[in-house]
Order: sequence, then C-alpha cells, then structure tokens
Amino acid sequence: MKKLSLLTIGILLCLTSFAQQALWGGTPIVSPEVHDDYTVTFRFKAPNADTVQITGDFLPTEKIKTPMGLFDGPGKAYLKKDANGIWTYTSESLKPELYGYSFIVDGLKSTDPNNAFLIRDVATVTNIFLVGGGPGGLYKVNDVPHGTVARRWYDSPGLNMKRRLTIYTPPGYESSTQEYPVLYLLHGAGGDEEAWMALGRLSQIMDNLIAEGKAKPMIVVMPNGNVTQEAAPGEGIRGFYKPQFMEPKTMSGSYIGTFMDIINFVEKNYKVKANKENRAIAGLSMGGFHSLHISRYFPNTFDYVGLFSPAIMPNANVQSKVFDNFDSTLKAQMDNGYKLYWIGIGKSDFLYKAVADYRAELDKMGMKYTYVETDGGHIWKNWRIYISDFAPLLFK
Amino acid sequence: MKKLSLLTIGILLCLTSFAQQALWGGTPIVSPEVHDDYTVTFRFKAPNADTVQITGDFLPTEKIKTPMGLFDGPGKAYLKKDANGIWTYTSESLKPELYGYSFIVDGLKSTDPNNAFLIRDVATVTNIFLVGGGPGGLYKVNDVPHGTVARRWYDSPGLNMKRRLTIYTPPGYESSTQEYPVLYLLHGAGGDEEAWMALGRLSQIMDNLIAEGKAKPMIVVMPNGNVTQEAAPGEGIRGFYKPQFMEPKTMSGSYIGTFMDIINFVEKNYKVKANKENRAIAGLSMGGFHSLHISRYFPNTFDYVGLFSPAIMPNANVQSKVFDNFDSTLKAQMDNGYKLYWIGIGKSDFLYKAVADYRAELDKMGMKYTYVETDGGHIWKNWRIYISDFAPLLFK
Repeated sequence: MKKLSLLTIGILLCLTSFAQQALWGGTPIVSPEVHDDYTVTFRFKAPNADTVQITGDFLPTEKIKTPMGLFDGPGKAYLKKDANGIWTYTSESLKPELYGYSFIVDGLKSTDPNNAFLIRDVATVTNIFLVGGGPGGLYKVNDVPHGTVARRWYDSPGLNMKRRLTIYTPPGYESSTQEYPVLYLLHGAGGDEEAWMALGRLSQIMDNLIAEGKAKPMIVVMPNGNVTQEAAPGEGIRGFYKPQFMEPKTMSGSYIGTFMDIINFVEKNYKVKANKENRAIAGLSMGGFHSLHISRYFPNTFDYVGLFSPAIMPNANVQSKVFDNFDSTLKAQMDNGYKLYWIGIGKSDFLYKAVADYRAELDKMGMKYTYVETDGGHIWKNWRIYISDFAPLLFK
Repeated sequence: MKKLSLLTIGILLCLTSFAQQALWGGTPIVSPEVHDDYTVTFRFKAPNADTVQITGDFLPTEKIKTPMGLFDGPGKAYLKKDANGIWTYTSESLKPELYGYSFIVDGLKSTDPNNAFLIRDVATVTNIFLVGGGPGGLYKVNDVPHGTVARRWYDSPGLNMKRRLTIYTPPGYESSTQEYPVLYLLHGAGGDEEAWMALGRLSQIMDNLIAEGKAKPMIVVMPNGNVTQEAAPGEGIRGFYKPQFMEPKTMSGSYIGTFMDIINFVEKNYKVKANKENRAIAGLSMGGFHSLHISRYFPNTFDYVGLFSPAIMPNANVQSKVFDNFDSTLKAQMDNGYKLYWIGIGKSDFLYKAVADYRAELDKMGMKYTYVETDGGHIWKNWRIYISDFAPLLFK
C-alpha cells in the first residue's frame, strides 16, 4: 500500500465513505484508457462474472428488435478476463469524438465504476470519454481564454413561471464595454437547459472557435424548451424524479408564443446588440421545430436561423395552432430578409424525408437557405458538428 | 405499450440510443421512491442475480476491516426478489437529509439504472436521493427567488495559471445597485470548485436562507483549493482522468500565500463591499485548514471565520512553512479584532482531539470563538448543517 499520513488516511476514511475502494481494493484500475493511437482500452473487475460485454456508440451499429420493427442500435463487444478477474477490451483506433458506453455484466447494464464522467440523456446516465485531436479538439478544454457559464432564473409572464436557463458569455464579457450579439440555442425533446452544455460541449466549442478567430465573440442563451418544466430534472421544485421523454405540451405552441419573455430578459439584463442583425436562433430536433416556428412567428427578429435535424411538421395527422398561418408568416420572414437560413441533417436521419419535403416548399416559394448533409442519423455527434459549422457563420 | 406518435418513436429511437430501455424494457421501474412517511423503496431489475444488496449512508454503520484496523463504514441490507425478477428494499422512516447509496449485485457494486441523479466524490460516482421537509427543506429547490450560479475563470499570477471557480450571486444581484458582502467557501481534500454545489447543496441552502430572511444576501465564492489543478476533473485542460484524493502540494502553503489573487479578482469584478466587515472565509476539513491559515496570514482581512471539521496541524511529525509564525500571526488576528471565529466538529470525527487541542490553545491565548459540536463524524451531512448555521451569523 502506498504510504499515507495518518491524517490522510483519517480524512479518506471518513470523508468519502464511497471512495474507499481505490485505497483498500488493490491496484487502481484505469478505464477507459485512451492510447496515443486513439485505440481505447476498457477494464472492469468482476472475478465471478460469466460474461462482460461493452456497448457504445463507438462500435458498429447492430440491428435491434423492437415492437416497431428492426432499428439500428449501438453495437456490442465481449471483454476477456485475466487471471486477476479483470476484464478488458481494446477498441480499434477511433476518430476524435465524444463517445458513450456501458458494460453489460451477465446480462445487466452497468456503469463503469472507474470512470467518474457520465452524462444524463433523458433518464439514462452513461459513461463518456473523449478522443482528442483533429476536429475533436474543438470539444476539449484547451489552454485558451474561457467564457463564463451561468445558470440563472428569469420570469416568464407568458408561462407564469420562474424558469431556469444556461447562459454562456464569451471571454472578456464582464469587463468589456462593448455589446455582443446573441445566439439562442435550443435543445431536443429529451433535453433541457443542461443538454447543450453536457452532450453538446457548447462552452468548449465556443471557447475554441473564438480563440481561433473562427467565431465572433457572442452570448449563447440555452433556455429550457419544455413548457411544463421550470428547470432541468433535479434543479426545480419537483426535486429529483425520473425524467421522461418529451414533456407535455412542449410542441403545442405555448413555448413559441412566449419566447419573447426570454429575449426581453436577455436584452434587459445583458450587454447585447438588441437588433435583428445580432440575433440568431438555432436548435436540434424539437429545438429545430421551435427555431423554425419562433423565427416565423416573429418574422423580423432573427437574421440567422439554424435548423439542426429539425422536426418539421405538420403532416396530415397533426393538428395544432402552431401551424396557423404557416405559409403567410414564412413568406413575411422571407420578405423581411435575413442573412442565413441554415439546415443540416444526417443522411440516415428518420426525419430526412420531412426535411427534403420542407426544402422543396422553400424552393417553390423562393426562400433561400444553406443546406448541409452529413453521414449518420439523429445523433449528438451531428449536432456538435452543426454548431461547430454554424457558429462561425454568424454576425459577419 | 403506450401509444406514441411515429415522430415520437422515431426521435426516441434515434436521439437517445441509451435511453430506449424505458420504452422497450416493459414497465418502467421507479427507484428510489420516497414515500410520504419518509420510508424509501429501492428497486432493481435483475432476474438472474443470486443476491442484491444495498449500501448507503442511510443504513446503520458497520465495522469494515482495513489494513489500518476496523473503521465505521456504510451499512448494507438485502433486497428481495419478486416473480418478475425485480428486487426491492424499503428503508425505515428516514430523517430529512441528502443520502447516497449503491447496489451490490452478486458482489459487484452498481449504480441504480433507474435513478438519474448521481454525485461524484473524488473518483466515485454514487446515486443520491433527498428526503424533504423539516430542516432538510433547506436543501430542496423551493419556490423562492433563486440566485445565479456561474462557473468562471480568473487569473492567478501567484500560481501562474488560469483557474476556475464557482460563484453564487444572490437573487436580484444583477439588477441591483447595492454592494454585497462575500463569503469565501472552501472544499476538502477530495473536492474542487464543484463540491459545495453538488454535495453541499450550497445554492439551495442560500436561496432558502435568504428567502426566509435568515441570512443576508451575500456572494459566495467557491474556488478550487488544489494548487496543481486549474479546474475540477473534466473541466480543465487535463481532460477526463481518474480523480485522486488530495492533489499534490495542496497543503504546502502556496494556496494560502496566493489567496489574494482570488480576493482581488472578486473585488475587481463584482459589486462587493471590499472591507473586513464584509468578508468571511470558511471551509471544511482541508478547507478548514486553509481558512484558519489564510485568515491569520492576512490577519486584518476577515471579520468572520468558519472552521468546519478543520484539519488543524501542526503536529510533531509535520514540517511546513505554512506553520511559520503561527503564534504571532494568530495573535495579530486576535488583536486586530473580528466578529466571529466559529468552529464546528462532530463528536466522532477523527479530528475531534486535534480540534480540542486547538481550542485549548485559543483559550490559553484568550482568543474568543464560537464552538458547535454535532453527532457523527467527518461527513457532508455535518458540513451542510454547519453552513446552514454559519451563514445566518454573517454580516450582521
């Protein structure tokens, strides 16, 4: 055992009742270990287990059977056990990216007890790791000036609620006398005001793009788009509860109709350029739906709109007041002019056809847009790419 | 299966590759479930497991065998399996508190896959739950005005580093023209600038105390006390790595000697009353050590000092320049005057005797202090109590 002072031992014993395994449990296990060649070794101690598998988005996808048919799911691989009861698996060389994984021990999903980094997606918590370098370097904390990330509450008279949002202010904001442009950045149907920070690596991407001179210093406002939820699960008065996918009424129009509460709050409380040329709105999936409709509800408000894998309705089966005057407000938005209407989608996204149909509508009415198609589907990997490509185009 | 629109299914399938179990895995399991009588039911699905236990700080302690002898550790209890392969355990009625727990499945520690709330303590991630009401109501998010919590970076010329800190500004701070007092609140040897927020429930406690009129609106600055670490693990340029207990050099004096970097940053960048009457410093364990020594290094700087289960050296075996001029600087601090020197410790804390010895020294030199003794040991439960008791005494 490593030599430790009595003080240290005492503190360790008492302070961290759950953290003692490292000390008393023998050799500390490192997992995951990202090697220089970007292969990654995973380790899991389970002397009595019969099988240990790993599943994650770094493995080739597998078809999974569901009541709705066969769908692509994350792949699996088997770990091998050594004489000490430690199971290991080493991946192929991986592309720079943020990845998620879990172990499956004798059929039961398990987090990696040696990896302290996890991200919640709806109700599921998954270990993550980051393969660095190359384009993935944007997702790392680098030795560059860092913006400030604040969790702050605002009043929404429209929803009659105090609500929580996350706000990124760029390096130097606090001591600057200048005013900044603002990007409103919206989450999807499983998310909340934490999603772009945790899964989207927003503050790292913005710090790095600004440091490289690729993006203008800007404020990024990440509100909570679920109208029945004042804050992310665990952060509001409901306390700790099991998060669900898609809160009620979130696509009913009330968020869109009350979005000015957020803009008013930001423009009253921050050093911003409060005009169309300096406002952008973007969002992923449901947040793309919100961005599309908010930008046409208030058709002279945003010069920059980003639709990332957007959920675009209506279709014949959906009735909602959100879609009232769709054509006329979209035409007003077009006629008022804008700098950028950006659409990105993955080739295997289940929304691909809906987006293609929407583009055909835009073409027919002569509404200009920038269109980007990437590999893959409806996944965070694409949304990190989209924000990294979109932010440099803003406010120029 | 619950009826879902195709859009919802599509998003769900693709958006959250790890979150599909809830949909396809049958009845959603709720765990933990806190009942009205404050008993708590835990559930874990494992049809093929032979034993499932739970361990946590809500169970009576058990003696655990270590190379250093027998020590108190968290207790264990067995879950029982039903016909569907779901294991359950219901606790006794618990006192209002934040608790942590893990499952042990056939001997392997496991997180609870149905509980999305976890807290990291050093390298270990543990599920948590909150039993509300009574004094524990201070730890909940209540329907009161909320302060803002920002993660921000500052320059430390003394340590030649950009460093990250967490700062709580009280409700109304941003739009106010008044100046505020400041509490500097320090973490222990396993912690960082996230510890008081996650394990300490600091923002909830301050919001609630201020709303009840029990504490004055104040700024709370939670810096990182590990001098070789610019930011919490995962938040700095080292990226994701396995956190360790007690970073090197953290009690060597360099943090204490450079603490003015933090005060200067705060007083330059925030609306603060920059005088002794409006500065407080407090910390737990190693943070108590830091608070003790910083307040005497700069003996005319703080009118309020809080030592929560403080690690108080020196003893005969420890040599460090931190202890140079201990007596004379402490006497200078006493002679300069102060409003409150507050010491709190648990009766079974392993530091109890060291604190008693230190109190005897204070008595001998005639240095006044307030002393609070609680049940229990060197645990977060006590530190949440201490900050809840200490904050109302400040700046009055």
